[in-house]
Amino acid sequence: MLSKAIAQLVRSLHQKKYRQQENLFLVEGAKSVQEVLSSAFRVELLLATDAFITDNTALISPQRCRVEIATPDELTRLGTLESNNAAIAVVQMRPNTPPTLPPNQWTLVLDDVRDPGNLGTILRIADWYGIDTILCSATTADVYNPKVISASKGSFTRIQWWYGDLEAILKTARQPIFGAFLDGEDVHQLTFGTAGGLIVLGNEANGIGPSVEKLITHRVTIPRYGLAESLNVSIATAVLLDNLRRGQ
Amino acid sequence: MLSKAIAQLVRSLHQKKYRQQENLFLVEGAKSVQEVLSSAFRVELLLATDAFITDNTALISPQRCRVEIATPDELTRLGTLESNNAAIAVVQMRPNTPPTLPPNQWTLVLDDVRDPGNLGTILRIADWYGIDTILCSATTADVYNPKVISASKGSFTRIQWWYGDLEAILKTARQPIFGAFLDGEDVHQLTFGTAGGLIVLGNEANGIGPSVEKLITHRVTIPRYGLAESLNVSIATAVLLDNLRRGQ
Repeated sequence: MLSKAIAQLVRSLHQKKYRQQENLFLVEGAKSVQEVLSSAFRVELLLATDAFITDNTALISPQRCRVEIATPDELTRLGTLESNNAAIAVVQMRPNTPPTLPPNQWTLVLDDVRDPGNLGTILRIADWYGIDTILCSATTADVYNPKVISASKGSFTRIQWWYGDLEAILKTARQPIFGAFLDGEDVHQLTFGTAGGLIVLGNEANGIGPSVEKLITHRVTIPRYGLAESLNVSIATAVLLDNLRRGQ
Repeated sequence: MLSKAIAQLVRSLHQKKYRQQENLFLVEGAKSVQEVLSSAFRVELLLATDAFITDNTALISPQRCRVEIATPDELTRLGTLESNNAAIAVVQMRPNTPPTLPPNQWTLVLDDVRDPGNLGTILRIADWYGIDTILCSATTADVYNPKVISASKGSFTRIQWWYGDLEAILKTARQPIFGAFLDGEDVHQLTFGTAGGLIVLGNEANGIGPSVEKLITHRVTIPRYGLAESLNVSIATAVLLDNLRRGQ
């Protein structure tokens, strides 16, 4: 049986306040825990079923983390998933290092994307389209939220992120800054070019805020052929990145 | 105060069994209820706040439905949304009429898409890209599920759907049948053509099932530039429809 202290620690990490205090976050379920064990993230503590431990010895030993055996029932009760018959990892956060914006690369920028499900899906989309850096406004959903980690389907291990003042960092960019708006240039007609750049997506309800909007060099729009008022921000991200990559 | 019978009816419609029994479904929240009031759907009963009724008289009177005044607290308690300070409509289902597959048009086909959020998002995407008919396997999520209606953001009023035996209906199609696979032709290289056709997307975990797969005439794939294993089915739908439309 797991100790009270461990149960308390895991439960506390459902909340941002305690994640920040402990500098730790949760990764849950077989697939995501396998991904984090194979990554450069440092796993502090692994709660796992006997079966998961037996099947994943090769992944667990290099991490040299503390391992505790747990039942599926304990994992489900302590975690945030509807059910979990495999594992929960307690993982160290990465430092929030200001990014360099390398030439010839594309970087995704999220201005106030609030929904954790959207952010997780965006990590997965970025990973599919080979984008490895995401800059987030301080108001964007917390990437360490268990819902984000879970929706990213392991892609959080392959994406770098940074949270901070977007206006300040975008001012230093020497690359074109594309932003998604409802009244921009048709993305089907546009050439993104091969010099790299930044692609900004905004809040679910209000789009890109004024302080970031004034730094956008190219307003782009996904053309509409029917009557829906808008597309979800993760959908718009995928369509823009697909258009960007097809031109290259 | 709302009667016990009304409260019971509304609560029962959270479940598919009672929706089918009553041939009724729920539409919740200001925006979605406004959309359904403006549509050809027949609203049987409207529960709404005084403010919503006053603001929407022009929409309510042509429907000639029974209207009951409700408090935000009652709407939230009876409905499925986290909060609802506007309205709930109890609406008649449409008959499940077998579709015609008109030439020169595109039809979306969903083979066992299980997640209600995905289905709702797909309705919204179809509506954005001007696709007005969706064929669903009997195992696909129920379109009348309140989560689907809510995620569709009103687009359910502009899409026709049909549930039934996909194999039987696809056998009668004279158009090309495109299907999303991980090993098909690169959608960036493909010409969808202007003759119309069907586009099939499959189950979240297992893709398109074997009985439908054998009827696919063109296997298509969204090219991957990074390391994510797959894209969510609603994301894949959006990217495929965007590629289809840009070529036309």
